[in-house]
Amino acid sequence: MKSFVRIVEVGPRDGLQNEKTQIATADKIALIDRLSATGLRSIEATSFVSPKWVPQLADAAEVFAGIARQPEVRYPVLVPNEQGYERARAVGVEEIAVFTAASEAFNQKNINASIDESLQRFAPVMQRASADGVAVRGYVSTVLGCPYQGDVPLTDVVRVARALHEMGCYEISLGDTIGVGTPAKARAMLLAVAQEVPISALAVHFHDTYGQALANILACLEEGVAVVDSAVSGTGGCPYAKGASGNVASEDVVYMLHGLGIETGIDLPKLAETGRWLAGLLGRETGSKVGKALAAS
Amino acid sequence: MKSFVRIVEVGPRDGLQNEKTQIATADKIALIDRLSATGLRSIEATSFVSPKWVPQLADAAEVFAGIARQPEVRYPVLVPNEQGYERARAVGVEEIAVFTAASEAFNQKNINASIDESLQRFAPVMQRASADGVAVRGYVSTVLGCPYQGDVPLTDVVRVARALHEMGCYEISLGDTIGVGTPAKARAMLLAVAQEVPISALAVHFHDTYGQALANILACLEEGVAVVDSAVSGTGGCPYAKGASGNVASEDVVYMLHGLGIETGIDLPKLAETGRWLAGLLGRETGSKVGKALAAS
Repeated sequence: MKSFVRIVEVGPRDGLQNEKTQIATADKIALIDRLSATGLRSIEATSFVSPKWVPQLADAAEVFAGIARQPEVRYPVLVPNEQGYERARAVGVEEIAVFTAASEAFNQKNINASIDESLQRFAPVMQRASADGVAVRGYVSTVLGCPYQGDVPLTDVVRVARALHEMGCYEISLGDTIGVGTPAKARAMLLAVAQEVPISALAVHFHDTYGQALANILACLEEGVAVVDSAVSGTGGCPYAKGASGNVASEDVVYMLHGLGIETGIDLPKLAETGRWLAGLLGRETGSKVGKALAAS
Repeated sequence: MKSFVRIVEVGPRDGLQNEKTQIATADKIALIDRLSATGLRSIEATSFVSPKWVPQLADAAEVFAGIARQPEVRYPVLVPNEQGYERARAVGVEEIAVFTAASEAFNQKNINASIDESLQRFAPVMQRASADGVAVRGYVSTVLGCPYQGDVPLTDVVRVARALHEMGCYEISLGDTIGVGTPAKARAMLLAVAQEVPISALAVHFHDTYGQALANILACLEEGVAVVDSAVSGTGGCPYAKGASGNVASEDVVYMLHGLGIETGIDLPKLAETGRWLAGLLGRETGSKVGKALAAS
């Protein structure tokens, strides 16, 4: 296992996007600023997807312009196309993330495009990002299962990850969007992708729908992955299973990593405190077991 | 990893004993009978500890006498001493469990005895059980940390586990009572004990206080453990951290095992349904993420 793991905190985007309760723009800014003070190195700040599709993050420009960006922290934002890219750049975004799914059915339902069409749509964004010196992260979703087609062939996961890497994404985040995966499958998926994309350019992104996220992360750490996506307070839920759990909680991941002797640079009590503060804003219990335990002890 | 793992369902005892809300005796009986119909092979039914110490399970005799015991299921009960043994045998108990801690401080606080004294107290119970053909399971608690002394030396864990095995326990359950362990520590602890007690006679018992239980179980499965304790609906809480999570949820363990291709003989949807029914009786959300996800989908 690597001695340092970078956490990519996706709560302000992937988490909040899928919460029923929405928080005020000022609170989103405060959340990101609090997270910036925990030692996190990457915080996905928001999404410049059209507000028509994701009204929860319609304040993307305001949020991004409002945060007190720290020099040691990267603040990627989700960008679906050139319009999104322009909106993001207008407020000073220096890193973006593009996304597609490994499942044909999911892409068709979600963005009305085949996998190949979705990749083609990124081409102009990738070119402009490259010209502008903007780093690009790539997301592959539904890597361990799809709500529409069920199983997703490993060959599709590998093909999409390789394509994103070849197009210039410096890192590919492999997402179990519906949280159905278990450790042996997660490990096999990671190893298959690592045949084509260096493992140092891979991240794992697990949802805790079935409680498997930490076990899956452990299996992937054992194979050498060094970047893990997670969301403070385990926000997010699952759009395909109302009431189910969301993203794996950053606090729980960090607790495991530190227990394994792996450094993250993160101040866990401070992170857990931020998670409980966020849960308070959302009017619910924290989704982090570490958050609960630290509050109780 | 083994191809079959036996789940020891501890919800009716370890779970209910540590729940704030208590359920009626008839409901405890119904719970065990429902669990018996899921394919579980071992269900810890109750505790014959003095009702003075554990008033929640004062109805132990009534519960045990009331259940419809199935021939293929074992129903161990907790027994602290000869009085408990006699009460248990009077209602037909055929398997008992004895318990001590690997932490000196915990034993002193909990049962006002040193580790060695606690082992001596079991001697007459073990002798009678042996004469009566009653199987005995042994619990070692605080194997990865103690609420009073903090770290617990591995040598103490090994010594206590070996002593219980030598005294005649057919299986030793290694319990992370306060749920502080992480996978590398769990693995190291298991391997240390397995130097002295055959791994086929070892079980692991994790609490999900810090969300680490499934990852810890995965690490132990990788070392060949084939018996896992868990509680349907993740009941139990933590007496040392009010509001924290309890035993690892059986549903989540079974989901992982089946995903790993490991058989359990358990009907997962039926188990999850029982977990939600129990949560309803307890007036709270199920503590199983699988339970939530299956209800939502």
